[in-house]
Amino acid sequence: MANLTRFGISIDSRLLSQFDEMIDQKGYVNRSEAIRDLIRAALVEKEWADDNQQTVATVTLVYDHHTRDLSDKLTEHQHSHHEEIVSTLHVHLDHHHCLEVVVIKGAANRVKRIADELIGTKGVKHGKLVATTTGQNLL
Amino acid sequence: MANLTRFGISIDSRLLSQFDEMIDQKGYVNRSEAIRDLIRAALVEKEWADDNQQTVATVTLVYDHHTRDLSDKLTEHQHSHHEEIVSTLHVHLDHHHCLEVVVIKGAANRVKRIADELIGTKGVKHGKLVATTTGQNLL
Amino acid sequence: MANLTRFGISIDSRLLSQFDEMIDQKGYVNRSEAIRDLIRAALVEKEWADDNQQTVATVTLVYDHHTRDLSDKLTEHQHSHHEEIVSTLHVHLDHHHCLEVVVIKGAANRVKRIADELIGTKGVKHGKLVATTTGQNLL
Amino acid sequence: MANLTRFGISIDSRLLSQFDEMIDQKGYVNRSEAIRDLIRAALVEKEWADDNQQTVATVTLVYDHHTRDLSDKLTEHQHSHHEEIVSTLHVHLDHHHCLEVVVIKGAANRVKRIADELIGTKGVKHGKLVATTTGQNLL
Repeated sequence: MANLTRFGISIDSRLLSQFDEMIDQKGYVNRSEAIRDLIRAALVEKEWADDNQQTVATVTLVYDHHTRDLSDKLTEHQHSHHEEIVSTLHVHLDHHHCLEVVVIKGAANRVKRIADELIGTKGVKHGKLVATTTGQNLL
Repeated sequence: MANLTRFGISIDSRLLSQFDEMIDQKGYVNRSEAIRDLIRAALVEKEWADDNQQTVATVTLVYDHHTRDLSDKLTEHQHSHHEEIVSTLHVHLDHHHCLEVVVIKGAANRVKRIADELIGTKGVKHGKLVATTTGQNLL
Repeated sequence: MANLTRFGISIDSRLLSQFDEMIDQKGYVNRSEAIRDLIRAALVEKEWADDNQQTVATVTLVYDHHTRDLSDKLTEHQHSHHEEIVSTLHVHLDHHHCLEVVVIKGAANRVKRIADELIGTKGVKHGKLVATTTGQNLL
Repeated sequence: MANLTRFGISIDSRLLSQFDEMIDQKGYVNRSEAIRDLIRAALVEKEWADDNQQTVATVTLVYDHHTRDLSDKLTEHQHSHHEEIVSTLHVHLDHHHCLEVVVIKGAANRVKRIADELIGTKGVKHGKLVATTTGQNLL
């Protein structure tokens, strides 16, 4: 059950009007929501500085599935970390290219290691980790 | 069919040994692969500076599915951009929290707009865009 | 003369207590100041997306001053952009290494070009651009 | 004395031609130099993951010098860390705004703390840390 608090912030009115314009462009419904998002993003960044913090991440990979043994190697990597790897989405971009998104859950340092391994697999053209959150600390 | 070129680079041997140590930790099979990855990452970054470039991105969202109307709103957003939104993966993190990864394909500026809209939806706790590539320019 | 506005935001109390802990660690005197900083950081990021926006940046360079012709080349680059390059700080890190910080003022795309040129100069070991602001739009 | 090694890398010729185009735009004199820069940037990033590593950083601050007590507070902060703070460059941006670049040397976690303190000082409009290197490990 949500337990809401309300507090006031003071701000220069011209700074506020620029902020209002930006959040309107981004489609936010109100200032509270936009400010909560800024706060949560700062907290998630801090979470990842702690190696042992339980976290969630996604790894986005783009590769050519004609590369010899690549799909097999990626599948093998993922199975050898089946306790951390939750799920995978596969998209066929064109005749050659696949995009794969792998969801990983576990301690921050372990998640980074698995991401490095996937991104470093020979034949992966581009790979990137998104450090997100289990959400449990971000009410 | 790949059309391989080979060229030499000169480098201080101590710098090289540090690089070798780093790529070994990251699981790369050889230097060529690690250097190609650095090159491709730099090129993908440049691709996204051009607003009209055809690109691919993933947006990772974490939210509490008990938030009123949130799932409906996210679904609605996604359908209103069905030409760009390719596919979505949904993971149940715990009793409350969902992680959703949305794959978006289109012109860079359009993809950024759709990502802003999804991340800005009231109730989304954390959202992040990964700018990747169709792979077609990255042989 | 500052023209202050005050508005209220509502937030879950547990999220707020995490935020309070973080800003206390970072040494902020109060929430308003911390939130204004988050807002201004988001606005500065947006400023730099507009190529023609008047901006300010710093470029940090580390190099070995024994590298042949390097100091001369960096000085020459800086003089050829004397309209944009405002000032330079030079620090002697050790017998070999120098750190140089160059302050650049001008249109965003022009500033990025000059920064690329400085960072790409043969012999520069590490270089990084900080995109900041003239402050004029950030009351 | 430099101790150069030479090694070959193999790469798809179309990927190479894109790389050549990019490094030409950035003003690199040759591929070796551009690749060494990519390698050094990756190594510097890794250096900063180790809290105890000796590092160098710059902090860029923009503020209005009319803000009450702000200059005094910034000076005081800097003096209380005089062992780590090496030097400061001050630029007068306009009638109101100052840009200050502070060079900090020390253990990575200590440098981050000092940077947070400076950036969090009431009245600082924008602040950013650049994590660079003493250069000693980057031949």
